[in-house]
Amino acid sequence: MSKPETSLMSRIVSLSKRRGFIYQASEIYGGLNGFWDFGPLGCQLKNNLRDQWWHDMVECPPLGPDGKPLSIVGLDSSIIQHPRTWHASGHVGGFADPMQTCRHCKKLFRADHVPDLMRESKWALSFAEAMQVAATDTLSVDAMMGEAVLFDAAKALQWAQRKGKKLAPGLAFVRKPDITLSGLAEDMKANATQSLPLASLLSYLATEQKNITGLQTPCPECGGDLTEPRMFNLMFETHAGVVQDEASKVYLRPETAQGIFLQYKNIIDTTRVKPPFGVAQVGKSFRNEVTPRNFIFRSREFEQMEMEFFCAPEDGMMWYEFWVAERMRWWESIGCKKENLYRHVIPEDELAHYSKGTSDIEYRWPFTAPGFGELEGVAYRTDYDLKQHSEFSKQTLDYIDQEAGRRYVPHVVEPASGLTRGVLLLLSEAYQYDESRASPEWLKIKPSLAPIKLGIFPLMNKDGMPEIAEKLYMDLRQTYTCQYDAKQSIGKRYARMDEAGTPFCITVDGETLKDQAVTIRNRDTATQERVALDKVRAYVAEKLA
Amino acid sequence: MSKPETSLMSRIVSLSKRRGFIYQASEIYGGLNGFWDFGPLGCQLKNNLRDQWWHDMVECPPLGPDGKPLSIVGLDSSIIQHPRTWHASGHVGGFADPMQTCRHCKKLFRADHVPDLMRESKWALSFAEAMQVAATDTLSVDAMMGEAVLFDAAKALQWAQRKGKKLAPGLAFVRKPDITLSGLAEDMKANATQSLPLASLLSYLATEQKNITGLQTPCPECGGDLTEPRMFNLMFETHAGVVQDEASKVYLRPETAQGIFLQYKNIIDTTRVKPPFGVAQVGKSFRNEVTPRNFIFRSREFEQMEMEFFCAPEDGMMWYEFWVAERMRWWESIGCKKENLYRHVIPEDELAHYSKGTSDIEYRWPFTAPGFGELEGVAYRTDYDLKQHSEFSKQTLDYIDQEAGRRYVPHVVEPASGLTRGVLLLLSEAYQYDESRASPEWLKIKPSLAPIKLGIFPLMNKDGMPEIAEKLYMDLRQTYTCQYDAKQSIGKRYARMDEAGTPFCITVDGETLKDQAVTIRNRDTATQERVALDKVRAYVAEKLA
Repeated sequence: MSKPETSLMSRIVSLSKRRGFIYQASEIYGGLNGFWDFGPLGCQLKNNLRDQWWHDMVECPPLGPDGKPLSIVGLDSSIIQHPRTWHASGHVGGFADPMQTCRHCKKLFRADHVPDLMRESKWALSFAEAMQVAATDTLSVDAMMGEAVLFDAAKALQWAQRKGKKLAPGLAFVRKPDITLSGLAEDMKANATQSLPLASLLSYLATEQKNITGLQTPCPECGGDLTEPRMFNLMFETHAGVVQDEASKVYLRPETAQGIFLQYKNIIDTTRVKPPFGVAQVGKSFRNEVTPRNFIFRSREFEQMEMEFFCAPEDGMMWYEFWVAERMRWWESIGCKKENLYRHVIPEDELAHYSKGTSDIEYRWPFTAPGFGELEGVAYRTDYDLKQHSEFSKQTLDYIDQEAGRRYVPHVVEPASGLTRGVLLLLSEAYQYDESRASPEWLKIKPSLAPIKLGIFPLMNKDGMPEIAEKLYMDLRQTYTCQYDAKQSIGKRYARMDEAGTPFCITVDGETLKDQAVTIRNRDTATQERVALDKVRAYVAEKLA
Repeated sequence: MSKPETSLMSRIVSLSKRRGFIYQASEIYGGLNGFWDFGPLGCQLKNNLRDQWWHDMVECPPLGPDGKPLSIVGLDSSIIQHPRTWHASGHVGGFADPMQTCRHCKKLFRADHVPDLMRESKWALSFAEAMQVAATDTLSVDAMMGEAVLFDAAKALQWAQRKGKKLAPGLAFVRKPDITLSGLAEDMKANATQSLPLASLLSYLATEQKNITGLQTPCPECGGDLTEPRMFNLMFETHAGVVQDEASKVYLRPETAQGIFLQYKNIIDTTRVKPPFGVAQVGKSFRNEVTPRNFIFRSREFEQMEMEFFCAPEDGMMWYEFWVAERMRWWESIGCKKENLYRHVIPEDELAHYSKGTSDIEYRWPFTAPGFGELEGVAYRTDYDLKQHSEFSKQTLDYIDQEAGRRYVPHVVEPASGLTRGVLLLLSEAYQYDESRASPEWLKIKPSLAPIKLGIFPLMNKDGMPEIAEKLYMDLRQTYTCQYDAKQSIGKRYARMDEAGTPFCITVDGETLKDQAVTIRNRDTATQERVALDKVRAYVAEKLA
């Protein structure tokens, strides 16, 4: 199994486009940064993941510690809610990222993304090369940024006049090499050193007047100096109603969770649930990310699958542990390898002030490997949200437990995951490369989640084969998403189905008329079985369960 | 079958709230006009309708005129697209409603809604009563507005000083009775009449200086005079990115359809579809309606189910007729009575300039009955949309038909329906009232679409009954949404399930241990059948198909 040159991530992006999983939104208008559309295969895959979560969470919830099914109901609340919702939740005041602008090219960056972006910066890599930092293929970029560099002024000036002018037009050292160089030389002299870590050196190059401004952070794009981080609210604002003023200002929800808290009382009053119980929701959320990144991993419009589990205060920690374990088990159940999942327990001193415990369920993403990055958060939020909404709405949100003769504000454990990220996980986990196959790239998606379940082919488009194949197709398509394909060689048809992740292909061949049987080819093993026509439904039902 | 006093619509709204189908969004903050949340039963019902449409449109599309399945694929495009999308589609320039503001109370109304609102206006009805227009229970309000009224100045003045002051503080006749009355008297004298249609009379009462302003339209709320209609764009605006300026302005989509046109070329290039083929999408859309009305019928955030069917230009009219018939058949297939559907062919002179034919599929809504109102539109849109996007994006969107050796911009037929409206149809169609039943209100929802498919009860919570019932529940809940209920009398449990529209209730009773059989009660007939435990799955599968 040999691997092509490009990164796993770029191969997934490319396959996604080529086979109609995921397109850039508004591509014909040049695209829109941070927005993606799900094509025919992608939206089927996303729907399947959504439906599996909904089934396992709402329609057939897991068993609790007592062996009995938990009580969880569904909700679909509006994307636009009353603006006080976001005052109570803290999103209006606090849901902000520190952000930096380049004073030269005016580009904006999330402050915490800048170090990552510097590691990918074209001009920084070019400069490192000029300074003869160890070649990037023998030293990781991470290590390179910390590498002590012996500063060679002549070579640096040469770089500034040639490559620097093109790649880093905003860099102080490119615009005003003499001033910049003198400041750097002074400090080196004072510290009696000619070498500096690359990252520091780059900052010096971006700083015109260190004695006035202090050392500057360079722009990863053009080398210009970045402003101090400023807070920027991530919520999209709009106005409901005709008049556009402060009173009509509303927000697109940045999470589905708050909609659940708003309806907690209605649900208690109009259904027969009582704590412990959950309310689950799948839906779109919007965050005006400053730097959308990594394909659909961080986009501005995305889908979430969130559940709020309401329980008695004394049971909060128990349910927190329960849901962390249950959610990790679930990701494995949909086809994620155990070794690619990691429970990251948020240290106590980093917890939100109201949380008694939070764990991120992390996945080994193609762009974090061998490290991990967030897939789902499971947070024990105590009674914080209900109390906030109670205070802001002046409504009592107590639960009255008549049997136990007490009242309390329920505590909440929230498993919050991304449906959009879930699709990226499925693609990343499924992506296979094997040059010995007709389609070297193929997707090993769990059969029950595959966008197309069955390919149905007549081996040749004659001799009664299409008639039988069509009859089979007309029957099976009632229950499964099927693709009928009679074009080109059978090998090419298998290859197309492999790329789409279709687990089984059924071929009607010349023998079928005689033996009333078909060939069923297995995507994962590339082996074939002969199955009697009247046994096909049972065969398929068992394999796709 | 007797009927309660309140209107069908208000009973549906009330049942929807009481049983957790639909809540007002942000209710604890006083609500948000035009936004609704779907509760546990409502979102399950909505999901079922969505899935049925998706199955019948994308996963198992209808058969075409040649008896073979049509080719239709799915898409899930972003709510926020590049702003040029809406310039090309005409929504930025033209997607506007004429709107009127009250100069007195500053309320805003869609101009075409004002006559409807006047018919419900409290002050207008009160004035009509004072003028002794035939009592509203013997004459329809519609007829009343056209009724010639003999103007009795003394009674009118008395009304103005008492009821008018409270109900119509903005009415010119209430604020300045003498001036208003003199203008009216002049015109009556000039026309030698003392009687006027009620609607005209109300306009006179709202007009202070007819010679200067002409006759005014009164505000349905306070009687003040309304401004001339002004255009108001219905799209919600927001900004993508950090800087809020014209360049970053984007819109929440007012329809899902345009997302399909934007990806038409990608879909042609990355899947194997060729005309005729369809692209279907379900998703949220947003329209900043001036006067959201009639529960979830006209809300500001709603869900659509739209499909664009691309075909050769010469086949457009054929597919238009095909889809009108197919869509009407579909609404019947999900439980809508034929007599409650109506095809309203839009007259040629009212068609959009690019359309060669449009039909509204109308439904007899509770608030339009005995009339009809829009449920779905089927529009033959020719090649208008693709040509617009081609022009605005400078991309060629021709289809190259290699077999026939020609290229053309496909024509499009669009069946566009509302998922949110579909839920209102299901509730309206299902609502039953029968005082002889334990729950007089009950929902006759088609079994396959019911939010809860099965109620599972132990007759009594002892003697081994719960154990068998729980075992049955644990098995059936894997496949169907089930509700286990052991509380209160069996009659009350049936009643609860009837209100929720649950088609079947399975009861384990004292005999079950002996005969290994259960009672299955049918919601619609309220009759019961004895079914062997090992036959329950087959029984249920058949009934819920």
